[in-house]
Amino acid sequence: MGIGVWLMGARGSVAVTSVVGALAVRAGLAEPSGMVTESPPLRDAALPGLTDLVFGGHDITAVPVVKKAESLAAAGVLPAGLVASLGVDLGAVEREARALPVAATQRETAELIAADITGFRDRHGLDRVVVINVASTEAAASDHPAHADPAALEAALGSTEPVLPASALAAYAAFRAGCPFIDFTPSTGARLPALEQLAAERGLPYGGRDGKTGETLVKSVLAPMFMMRNLRVRSWSGTNLLGGGDGANLADPAANAAKAGSKQRVLKETLGYQPQGHSLIEYVDDIGDFKTAWDLITFTGFLGVGMRMEFSWHGCDSALAAPLVLDLARLVAAAHAAGRSGPLTELAFFFKDPLGDVPHGLADQWANLINFAHSLSDQGSPSALGALSDQGRPSALGALSDPGSPSAPEALSDPGSPNDPGGRAPGMPKEDDA
Amino acid sequence: MGIGVWLMGARGSVAVTSVVGALAVRAGLAEPSGMVTESPPLRDAALPGLTDLVFGGHDITAVPVVKKAESLAAAGVLPAGLVASLGVDLGAVEREARALPVAATQRETAELIAADITGFRDRHGLDRVVVINVASTEAAASDHPAHADPAALEAALGSTEPVLPASALAAYAAFRAGCPFIDFTPSTGARLPALEQLAAERGLPYGGRDGKTGETLVKSVLAPMFMMRNLRVRSWSGTNLLGGGDGANLADPAANAAKAGSKQRVLKETLGYQPQGHSLIEYVDDIGDFKTAWDLITFTGFLGVGMRMEFSWHGCDSALAAPLVLDLARLVAAAHAAGRSGPLTELAFFFKDPLGDVPHGLADQWANLINFAHSLSDQGSPSALGALSDQGRPSALGALSDPGSPSAPEALSDPGSPNDPGGRAPGMPKEDDA
Amino acid sequence: MGIGVWLMGARGSVAVTSVVGALAVRAGLAEPSGMVTESPPLRDAALPGLTDLVFGGHDITAVPVVKKAESLAAAGVLPAGLVASLGVDLGAVEREARALPVAATQRETAELIAADITGFRDRHGLDRVVVINVASTEAAASDHPAHADPAALEAALGSTEPVLPASALAAYAAFRAGCPFIDFTPSTGARLPALEQLAAERGLPYGGRDGKTGETLVKSVLAPMFMMRNLRVRSWSGTNLLGGGDGANLADPAANAAKAGSKQRVLKETLGYQPQGHSLIEYVDDIGDFKTAWDLITFTGFLGVGMRMEFSWHGCDSALAAPLVLDLARLVAAAHAAGRSGPLTELAFFFKDPLGDVPHGLADQWANLINFAHSLSDQGSPSALGALSDQGRPSALGALSDPGSPSAPEALSDPGSPNDPGGRAPGMPKEDDA
Amino acid sequence: MGIGVWLMGARGSVAVTSVVGALAVRAGLAEPSGMVTESPPLRDAALPGLTDLVFGGHDITAVPVVKKAESLAAAGVLPAGLVASLGVDLGAVEREARALPVAATQRETAELIAADITGFRDRHGLDRVVVINVASTEAAASDHPAHADPAALEAALGSTEPVLPASALAAYAAFRAGCPFIDFTPSTGARLPALEQLAAERGLPYGGRDGKTGETLVKSVLAPMFMMRNLRVRSWSGTNLLGGGDGANLADPAANAAKAGSKQRVLKETLGYQPQGHSLIEYVDDIGDFKTAWDLITFTGFLGVGMRMEFSWHGCDSALAAPLVLDLARLVAAAHAAGRSGPLTELAFFFKDPLGDVPHGLADQWANLINFAHSLSDQGSPSALGALSDQGRPSALGALSDPGSPSAPEALSDPGSPNDPGGRAPGMPKEDDA
Ligand SMILES: NC(=O)c1ccc[n+]([C@@H]2O[C@H](COP(=O)([O-])OP(=O)(O)OC[C@H]3O[C@@H](n4cnc5c(N)ncnc54)[C@H](O)[C@@H]3O)[C@@H](O)[C@H]2O)c1
Ligand SMILES: NC(=O)c1ccc[n+]([C@@H]2O[C@H](COP(=O)([O-])OP(=O)(O)OC[C@H]3O[C@@H](n4cnc5c(N)ncnc54)[C@H](O)[C@@H]3O)[C@@H](O)[C@H]2O)c1
Ligand SMILES: NC(=O)c1ccc[n+]([C@@H]2O[C@H](COP(=O)([O-])OP(=O)(O)OC[C@H]3O[C@@H](n4cnc5c(N)ncnc54)[C@H](O)[C@@H]3O)[C@@H](O)[C@H]2O)c1
Ligand SMILES: NC(=O)c1ccc[n+]([C@@H]2O[C@H](COP(=O)([O-])OP(=O)(O)OC[C@H]3O[C@@H](n4cnc5c(N)ncnc54)[C@H](O)[C@@H]3O)[C@@H](O)[C@H]2O)c1
Ligand code: NA
Ligand code: NA
Repeated sequence: MGIGVWLMGARGSVAVTSVVGALAVRAGLAEPSGMVTESPPLRDAALPGLTDLVFGGHDITAVPVVKKAESLAAAGVLPAGLVASLGVDLGAVEREARALPVAATQRETAELIAADITGFRDRHGLDRVVVINVASTEAAASDHPAHADPAALEAALGSTEPVLPASALAAYAAFRAGCPFIDFTPSTGARLPALEQLAAERGLPYGGRDGKTGETLVKSVLAPMFMMRNLRVRSWSGTNLLGGGDGANLADPAANAAKAGSKQRVLKETLGYQPQGHSLIEYVDDIGDFKTAWDLITFTGFLGVGMRMEFSWHGCDSALAAPLVLDLARLVAAAHAAGRSGPLTELAFFFKDPLGDVPHGLADQWANLINFAHSLSDQGSPSALGALSDQGRPSALGALSDPGSPSAPEALSDPGSPNDPGGRAPGMPKEDDA
Repeated sequence: MGIGVWLMGARGSVAVTSVVGALAVRAGLAEPSGMVTESPPLRDAALPGLTDLVFGGHDITAVPVVKKAESLAAAGVLPAGLVASLGVDLGAVEREARALPVAATQRETAELIAADITGFRDRHGLDRVVVINVASTEAAASDHPAHADPAALEAALGSTEPVLPASALAAYAAFRAGCPFIDFTPSTGARLPALEQLAAERGLPYGGRDGKTGETLVKSVLAPMFMMRNLRVRSWSGTNLLGGGDGANLADPAANAAKAGSKQRVLKETLGYQPQGHSLIEYVDDIGDFKTAWDLITFTGFLGVGMRMEFSWHGCDSALAAPLVLDLARLVAAAHAAGRSGPLTELAFFFKDPLGDVPHGLADQWANLINFAHSLSDQGSPSALGALSDQGRPSALGALSDPGSPSAPEALSDPGSPNDPGGRAPGMPKEDDA
Repeated sequence: MGIGVWLMGARGSVAVTSVVGALAVRAGLAEPSGMVTESPPLRDAALPGLTDLVFGGHDITAVPVVKKAESLAAAGVLPAGLVASLGVDLGAVEREARALPVAATQRETAELIAADITGFRDRHGLDRVVVINVASTEAAASDHPAHADPAALEAALGSTEPVLPASALAAYAAFRAGCPFIDFTPSTGARLPALEQLAAERGLPYGGRDGKTGETLVKSVLAPMFMMRNLRVRSWSGTNLLGGGDGANLADPAANAAKAGSKQRVLKETLGYQPQGHSLIEYVDDIGDFKTAWDLITFTGFLGVGMRMEFSWHGCDSALAAPLVLDLARLVAAAHAAGRSGPLTELAFFFKDPLGDVPHGLADQWANLINFAHSLSDQGSPSALGALSDQGRPSALGALSDPGSPSAPEALSDPGSPNDPGGRAPGMPKEDDA
Repeated sequence: MGIGVWLMGARGSVAVTSVVGALAVRAGLAEPSGMVTESPPLRDAALPGLTDLVFGGHDITAVPVVKKAESLAAAGVLPAGLVASLGVDLGAVEREARALPVAATQRETAELIAADITGFRDRHGLDRVVVINVASTEAAASDHPAHADPAALEAALGSTEPVLPASALAAYAAFRAGCPFIDFTPSTGARLPALEQLAAERGLPYGGRDGKTGETLVKSVLAPMFMMRNLRVRSWSGTNLLGGGDGANLADPAANAAKAGSKQRVLKETLGYQPQGHSLIEYVDDIGDFKTAWDLITFTGFLGVGMRMEFSWHGCDSALAAPLVLDLARLVAAAHAAGRSGPLTELAFFFKDPLGDVPHGLADQWANLINFAHSLSDQGSPSALGALSDQGRPSALGALSDPGSPSAPEALSDPGSPNDPGGRAPGMPKEDDA
């Protein structure tokens, strides 16, 4: 009944805040505020419990999870004292944090990534592992012919020239390991025809992209307001001042452009036209994890009268993102258990740049999410969904300190036969195994 | 097929902006922006056309409608030049603007009010008249035993002591004249058991209360956002700086209190708890019609991290309110034609302090409104709803300059038999007459 | 060479932050940022050193200084860890914190207050003690004939009816004990003819009133900007949202009025006219010590074009006030040593509602302050001013743990002869003694 | 006694607003608000009167002054109706607006520019002409060896390759025509060693650069506030959203960079260090002439507590700039009359990027300005300064419609002898001629 959460970027702010938060909430040391799956309309849905979650992941930095947690506490993102109380549990997570493998070809790298994930799954006897990308935002990737279909991709991955950006390679490895994948970043992730097809073939669900935590969240309720009131938005300009690891990365103009683009999409989609103005991102080291966004909206009302609105949002990005990462892990695990595959468009609520042709207004997205979560509960059997999590095992930490016997990672050596009829497709839900 | 719009407070900012706007839009001189009934989802609903509307009303000031329109133009609320272009049509409205009657008893006053309304209906051969209160906000009214039921009220109205505040007397007179009533203000209006019962007996619909045009509108989308994301709002404090006629009136602490109360209700209703903080109103003459509201919201996210948001809203109140007054006139006329009676809870979208146990989030209110409008269209016959308004009569102004023969106002002298079986109940839809 | 700082309200936020800060800075645990006397233009003025300061005071609450310091640390006002490091030193201050005496007549109460102060002076062998009022803001005091001159006041103080508000009684006791007095609050303090005359007779300087730390500070630079640019300010409206002890106290409308008044004075004084608008104060418990002020300024430029500016100030009130309290202690001690008496109008830089007919623009006030501080240095002998503070005694804390032998408090029993020719007037500078 | 004001960019927003404003104020149709020389401290300085000013200038667009004025009125920058009332006078200015000459070499172009200016001077019998650059901001100019000294410059100007950017060529032509020059833009203007030397040789004063009208104005009072209070500014980030002609031009990244640079200089200069953050400029066409700037300032106070302030400025740029252009014309004419030459560092009050090693705090700049203006008055004879302007000639418009006989423009043909001992240097004050 355990659910693995494999974080690409496991030593980053969002990842570590998610881990600390999950441990703290299940230890009764903190409230689950900010977690949508713990709010009244979803509290009763049959989703995996927080105690069912086991964490691990890859990163390119060697700074230990605990050290990162301490610096987040010093910065005011995590409550002082909490990190110390969670020492043992954080150590267990640390033991499952791995250096991102590097090999001669991307195929070999992907095999190593997948092996780490399946090793983790076997070691902890997990029903399934959800892979979530919370690594640094990449520069927008350049096109490649091999992105078009799985066969071409398989062929190209054997070359010594990289064909996929890191986020897409992570998605590829996740799918090969039979795991659902979520892209919490604006990077490419699973958004390539070859990968979408691969997920479909393997019967795996995926979700994304770019967690919606601040300015865009506010836009997703204000833009519908203007639409509903038939007020014409003339311009909508935003400035985002942010420090921290993500901010430093976004100071790179290419990464910045990727992010800024996904931030304006909601306007076009909810208003039906694109107002003037841009969303700027500026890196200000000193601001740290507490980002400030300011938006100016000019609009015209009856008889053309000009009006305006401005807002400032002063939020702690990691504290806004982390509970959503936990929500997504629970929801996607449940979707996987329920046999859902392909793009999970019902998760648009969580993303700036959601998959599919979906509503962009938050209220509609929320209604869809509630329906989705309840439909999963109706479908899946409670035990598969971990609904028993509040009883049963004394603590999820037990799972961490008592890992199951490690088994050999599933080989990725047969790229030509993704639908291998002779065996279990890597992504098939465990309950179908029986 | 004509629809009368009788404005209590006909010479005020909201009223005159509504009138000028309706005339300008139907003359093709302005866009209907800000009118919800002209936005894509409602544009095709079978509602009365703008050309079907004929305006009149009561006020206590003698400043002519055209003069008020000119000063609104000078203040930038109305486009310069527009008022001059509409000269003749405004003159026609001016001829239907009456001094609020004053008599020895409130019963007599109500009869005179009703007589003015029915005279207007007959003179223009109108199918129905919607009475809309856009008069100055009153001080919160004191309780009176006669508010409890129609019979007690009828008895008390004969006394020389006033028993109803002006807004409630207007609602009473409207019902007696067989007219639907809308309270666009925070005043008492129809919100007394005696009046609610009277409306039910007469089969008349009514709506209210307090048009939602600025700070509260924004709250009605932001508060649900915090709720949907399970973010705990700690405090929500607002300051409203406004000038103009309404501002001057609200400088009176009693009126201010009435308004400030209805502004915080949305928080309790959408969040499920009442955060700390108040909504203050300050009169600043120099700010005129362009109100500024500023709100500070403090909230906690994951693991108790404190965050905050602030917004400033710089809107022209009358320009925000006027299109809603026109929307309400069209919708309530259609509801009346369709035989609806009692509180129109589906109009919550328009109001700060809506009737009934309804959702307070704007998106839900909007969905209800859209359903409501379309259900009315399905029910009512197109001709009754004025769907032919774009053809037929050359212009609504013809109606104004060629009124039908005035008929005697319906007597209000038989309070004991509101359900008079021998005649048409004053409020019954015309199509039921056939 | 020691300087006593006697705080009325010694257990409050401002007092405790001042004490902790002084101890931390002199122990090298913190930077003196926010202290004007440590900024480059004043760093070299011959003022008493921080190590010369010895703290004590009165309060009406019994919560110990250390407890208050801990709760300020929990609220983020003081850095976590600092309070623990200063344990011993804070204990020494705690031993000098006294319950505010209460007696049958205000004369007796004043005698007890003065006795506590002189006892403190003697015990520590201090050159002088500066009394600073940082107690809760009082309601505006009512007039009394005995406020007019010292003789009348002396007579009235013997009655069992209180004649002075607490802040004025503190000023009276300070003067009787020969101490300069500073009112950091908007309360009455020394601002009564009887007390001003008393200070003059005793040769004692005093200063006030109401520390300028947030919104008014910003006003004192923005208002001159509009004046210098000949831009007409039409309205200036402010909202102050604050929690904490001071906030709770100001929720009392009377205290609120006192404070709100002193906040608008700067406008009239720097602009030459009073724009429309008010400064509101609202208590929001959850906001705690981090106050938010928001101001909207509307103004007209060339050819009457309307423009506007708004600002939000999010400051920690106690952290803004505390360094000014230390600045004032040093400056007023130096002024006393230099023989200055009467109102210290050169301290206007520090106050919302400064004494005398002084400039209200911050830049002019600053220039005056710089001149003042340097003129004091020129006048006074370095040793008297504590310029040797960086050498000499190993630490001010030694002084605290090795108090001089306590001597009997000076009697206040001779109200009729304030200019007692036979003895040292209690307030005369020590250097005049030689 | 007439003073010419020759505007480079005469058909632009700032130029036309200046002209309309000067005409309106002297016709008694508007108040001089925003003009510093009309505020109490300068009102009595002996400066040229507004009625002494005669306007002309160059531009590259052919849109007539009146047309531009009409579009400024439509945009709300100029009061509706005013333009019509000033019809005749604007026509007179229109007759003195010339197309910017273009010739084979920059020397020839400069001669044509100078000829237009001296023709204007002669035609109107003007005592002097002040040349003011209010043309579009240029891209930052590239270095050229000929910028180093006048002789090298003269030689290079004869080439067919341009050696000076347009603003510097304008300054050169102004100096050759004996006129003081002011750069109200961030362009190069007179800021080249060759031009500075030329001005010195000709005894001509000059001033600049980049009018300080919005965000930087506010910075110039807020940054000193933080300095005076010894509060450490950590970051200061600004966003400027602007439309209009200037905005469109600044959308060009090169021009944007020039402007953004001069906007942060005040921080370094007043604080003594450069905080983090940048000042961004974004072009939003729809915002038009009413620019919005938003700044976030983070700072630390006592014991390192983090605090922040934000402000929004919503100003009409042309209406803020125009009165300063008139102030500068009057002040520089007076300085010229008083025999001042070289950089007018006392005008720092007006500029974002002032000349010389001057204070950057507004209050100090203002004190310097007041002294400067009064010292000029003391030096110059009242009649030369136009102090009689309120009497004397019935109207400046008479001057416009009755120009003096045009005289031949002074030749620029002798570049080798700028110090021509045999004649009046073109820039010598007229009163020295007598
Ligand atoms: N915090 C939010 O509110 C929010 C919202 C939406 C999206 N995001 C996205 O989440 C991501 C993480 O944000 P953060 O604030 O935690 O950033 P961070 O810089 O603190 O953490 C990113 C981590 O990813 C690691 N990393 C980089 N490349 C990697 C790779 N190829 N494989 C594995 N690990 C890699 C880094 O070493 C680092 O530890 C960013 O892409 C950000 O844009 C965050
Ligand atoms: N403008 C908005 O955005 C908005 C939003 C919600 C509610 N409202 C409400 O609408 C009402 C009108 O606002 P406004 O800005 O037009 O105010 P206004 O002062 O311009 O107009 C009110 C008019 O009502 C008249 N009046 C006063 N008492 C009357 C009475 N007993 N009978 C008839 N007329 C009477 C006044 O003479 C005046 O002409 C106010 O109650 C206001 O609170 C306005
Ligand atoms: N913090 C600022 O920025 C600032 C600025 C200007 C003025 N002030 C003024 O400083 C004062 C203190 O503010 P605070 O935030 O420390 O408030 P606080 O409530 O934390 O502290 C006030 C203290 O005064 C004590 N007290 C009350 N009455 C007393 C009396 N008669 N004698 C002695 N002690 C008494 C209280 O018990 C309390 O401990 C207030 O008057 C406030 O208005 C503060
Ligand atoms: N408005 C302000 O508050 C403000 C403040 C500081 C500086 N400035 C500067 O003032 C200048 C004018 O601003 P604006 O808003 O009037 O812009 P604008 O675009 O309205 O006017 C500029 C005018 O200059 C003309 N022009 C362009 N190149 C020229 C050249 N080489 N010679 C002569 N004319 C030329 C253009 O045709 C145009 O008519 C800009 O450089 C701007 O940066 C303005
Ligand atoms: Na703001
Ligand atoms: Na703001």
